[in-house]
Amino acid sequence: MPPDSTRLLERLADTLESRRGADPSRSYVAKLLAGGDDRILKKVGEEATETVIAAMQGDRAKLVAETADLWFHTLVMLVHHELRPEDVLAELARREGLSGIDEKASRPA
Amino acid sequence: MPPDSTRLLERLADTLESRRGADPSRSYVAKLLAGGDDRILKKVGEEATETVIAAMQGDRAKLVAETADLWFHTLVMLVHHELRPEDVLAELARREGLSGIDEKASRPA
Amino acid sequence: MPPDSTRLLERLADTLESRRGADPSRSYVAKLLAGGDDRILKKVGEEATETVIAAMQGDRAKLVAETADLWFHTLVMLVHHELRPEDVLAELARREGLSGIDEKASRPA
Amino acid sequence: MPPDSTRLLERLADTLESRRGADPSRSYVAKLLAGGDDRILKKVGEEATETVIAAMQGDRAKLVAETADLWFHTLVMLVHHELRPEDVLAELARREGLSGIDEKASRPA
Repeated sequence: MPPDSTRLLERLADTLESRRGADPSRSYVAKLLAGGDDRILKKVGEEATETVIAAMQGDRAKLVAETADLWFHTLVMLVHHELRPEDVLAELARREGLSGIDEKASRPA
Repeated sequence: MPPDSTRLLERLADTLESRRGADPSRSYVAKLLAGGDDRILKKVGEEATETVIAAMQGDRAKLVAETADLWFHTLVMLVHHELRPEDVLAELARREGLSGIDEKASRPA
Repeated sequence: MPPDSTRLLERLADTLESRRGADPSRSYVAKLLAGGDDRILKKVGEEATETVIAAMQGDRAKLVAETADLWFHTLVMLVHHELRPEDVLAELARREGLSGIDEKASRPA
Repeated sequence: MPPDSTRLLERLADTLESRRGADPSRSYVAKLLAGGDDRILKKVGEEATETVIAAMQGDRAKLVAETADLWFHTLVMLVHHELRPEDVLAELARREGLSGIDEKASRPA
């Protein structure tokens, strides 16, 4: 990973937020945000399907690219709902703290 | 202070990798990994749909929880394909460097 | 001789409608209908993903079974919204009449 | 339903099959079939998501149109895999015969 990967999702979300109200004809993100859930969620579903297809094909480069597309569009969705990747990460960290990340493993046999 | 996104995703992936070969009856992740693409990708599609439903409901707490589920299962998918979140973040960073994150914005009018 | 598609889908919808208000503990369909969009649409998304996976696997028997699941759950969804398969078939017939089923083919070269 | 709705799905599948090998630049269906699973399944996933969105919006006209799109693209998928809607309908009829359409209902209390 390059050194500037620190807090990458947070930084991407900052960029996405800065596109709110920008000219939809010049910014893909502004166009998505202007289109609202209808446009954004359609992309989330589309990229999820393309991720599944790439995985089934066993095409690892494509799988990385499609997963990047999927995460990217979920970031746009979060920003549209005035949420932040930090909210999702905090939820993942919370589950991890509770061993909730793999909860059955933490139960006594 | 929320966790750094890059470090958290890396740590989660480490945990997931450590479940390879564990007892599927005691670890949800081991069960997913043992089930392969068939089981893992079904969950990716399912969580993507639940994310879309939560967004349409405008239920922000549910949207955070479902997005966490979606990201979590894409991490399991990456680990199953011997990939890392770093690969996806590097792709996102690369696009960001190219202004590819919002490419139309970078073009001259 | 296989059943006429239109008649079969109509009859299935009749059966589904008859389950409205039935005991959810004894009828899977009653349980879906009682759960509303939240439960029904989750299944639609799940079965769509399983259909995609079966197709990618090239497993034709599984593809038939998963497509049957997908169509079945879209019928439940239609009934929940007080719609009928006839509505969807009429839309498909309308497009067929307009050559809309393959519209580019009907345009002059 | 108009009288010509009899065996509509079967008739649509006949039309789709006739597009195999047609000029992809003039026929949308020929283009889908030439693109194979990669192109066809992406559309199945996309239309499933749009169906879910339309249902959540409670927009019944849109829900009919999106379900028509979804069924249409599953027909293209079946034809691509040398299957027929009759195969799926026979599976649905078989389950109906077994009360499998709502199996819990058929069990003694």
